[in-house]
Amino acid sequence: MKTRIGILGDGNLGKGIELAIRETSDMELVGVFTRRDPSTVSIQTENVPVCSSNELLDWQDKIDVLIICGGSATDLPVQTPEYAKYFNVIDSFDTHAKIPQHFANVNASAVSANKTAIISVGWDPGMFSLMRAYTNAILPNGKDYTFWGKGVSQGHSDAIRRIEGVANAKQYTIPVDEALASVRNGENPELTTRQKHTRECFVVLKEGADPKKIEEEIVTMQNYFDEYDTTVHFIDAEEFAKNHSTMQHGGFVFRSGSTGINHENNHVIEFSLKLDSNPEFTTSVMIAFARAAKRLYDMGSYGCKTVFDIAPAMLLEQSPEEMRSHLL
Amino acid sequence: MKTRIGILGDGNLGKGIELAIRETSDMELVGVFTRRDPSTVSIQTENVPVCSSNELLDWQDKIDVLIICGGSATDLPVQTPEYAKYFNVIDSFDTHAKIPQHFANVNASAVSANKTAIISVGWDPGMFSLMRAYTNAILPNGKDYTFWGKGVSQGHSDAIRRIEGVANAKQYTIPVDEALASVRNGENPELTTRQKHTRECFVVLKEGADPKKIEEEIVTMQNYFDEYDTTVHFIDAEEFAKNHSTMQHGGFVFRSGSTGINHENNHVIEFSLKLDSNPEFTTSVMIAFARAAKRLYDMGSYGCKTVFDIAPAMLLEQSPEEMRSHLL
Repeated sequence: MKTRIGILGDGNLGKGIELAIRETSDMELVGVFTRRDPSTVSIQTENVPVCSSNELLDWQDKIDVLIICGGSATDLPVQTPEYAKYFNVIDSFDTHAKIPQHFANVNASAVSANKTAIISVGWDPGMFSLMRAYTNAILPNGKDYTFWGKGVSQGHSDAIRRIEGVANAKQYTIPVDEALASVRNGENPELTTRQKHTRECFVVLKEGADPKKIEEEIVTMQNYFDEYDTTVHFIDAEEFAKNHSTMQHGGFVFRSGSTGINHENNHVIEFSLKLDSNPEFTTSVMIAFARAAKRLYDMGSYGCKTVFDIAPAMLLEQSPEEMRSHLL
Repeated sequence: MKTRIGILGDGNLGKGIELAIRETSDMELVGVFTRRDPSTVSIQTENVPVCSSNELLDWQDKIDVLIICGGSATDLPVQTPEYAKYFNVIDSFDTHAKIPQHFANVNASAVSANKTAIISVGWDPGMFSLMRAYTNAILPNGKDYTFWGKGVSQGHSDAIRRIEGVANAKQYTIPVDEALASVRNGENPELTTRQKHTRECFVVLKEGADPKKIEEEIVTMQNYFDEYDTTVHFIDAEEFAKNHSTMQHGGFVFRSGSTGINHENNHVIEFSLKLDSNPEFTTSVMIAFARAAKRLYDMGSYGCKTVFDIAPAMLLEQSPEEMRSHLL
């Protein structure tokens, strides 16, 4: 019997989950749940209903794992603890500083309801976290480096769009090549914020807006741009639509450490992602962990988990024997 | 109370385990066991005895995890199933094709004795296996690529040394830059053996040996060199000693896959290692998994495991709370 997946949310993540399920043979989509009018939402999977999220609790017997595809700012802090009372759940909560509180809230719900929840699943947090964990375990004497990009930062793009006179904007975070090379070379550099990433902005102005003034406002914006070397390009709406609708992203995690009686031997571990579609990759990770959530639930392992708590064998369709023969 | 580690074997892996324990605060070395005369073996840790491996069974109450540092060809197939009857054990068995049989043998011993064993721990098998598992779980529609090097292949070096007229030899396996670039670029190339790696040999001749004849014998050697582009350098013993005693190694694991309704979005995941000391890195991995073996044993989780069966949180000294706050 296939694992029955429900999706809460019909944005990019919800669409990605739908696609990721199609790559498996052991899972099936049973319903997409939206806060909007369901008749306005169309999906790509035949014979699967789009329903109002108000009906979700009626589906407890029909869904094995609910994938919560909301945003971390306001949706997930409410949704995940709430739905973990009724479903096994997966989310991609990515506000790193608030993970301990979110974990505690979700755990309380899942433990009391005997459900299994896995939070903060994606690539950062998610795959990057796993790399940090494994490599810290292996090289306790070392330094971690995480770089993001090249890719769009939603938060920074939003910040530019809030400036008066801006019609549209995309902000790319770009790792600095020299910094990457130095880390890759085992030089263990101390890097300032400015030395790690640059920020490149593509901005469409409203009529009559002053580009000089807006550029100044962007590059000096506190917490967002003032600590970075920022480039601003003003383009028209047509070019914006043509060249800046990408959902590419990626990044790098390094652990650079040493071993030996005098720490004389250096080791550099590098993990990198180059992604054409940030949401489709994120949801591919989430669906693998949904498989684990079902298995853990069936084993009676309840409560809130993170990627650190899941043995890799739980994530694959293959049997342990196949994995030992072909992947080990 | 610290986890008490015993080491069986006093070669490069045994020495590496001793060093890796020094990087932890939760493990201690209690004894090194050798098949040689213990009085001829000296170690770097004060107040720890070197004992004959004949005495090992007397240490069952004094060792929490025994790290078996033998070779995969003849030592480990005998030692690991034997000692898993008496100890929790870790080995680095790396003959990929024989892992299922080795697993079955070790599992039978560990299950009947209520001990915990983790086999094939290191970087390949080991960390590379983990990368293959995670990335296959995330991108079911994709291709795996593994490259090794630059580093010394012990087997190929041995094969050259067996040629008449050869006094000493080192063979480096080197990944081909163009192949790496193509994979990194998401081109999903079909690569022949020759296109993936080159082999570079440094050979010291015995007096009177014919270099032309020996070079021919090397580059045409079946199963070792005939399918590769091989370069042979003849050098003197002094240069050999000076420049070719390195234990550097490394390699690359890629998963290149696609998502989307028509698989139109490509994703490239890359993991790489650049290691100054192959044995010290291997043993750093083994010690992290020794921590997990002790924890699993304490939880009553007996039998043979591989890296696929171990949740990453098991590998770290940090508490789950610390991990969620600092690594997630």
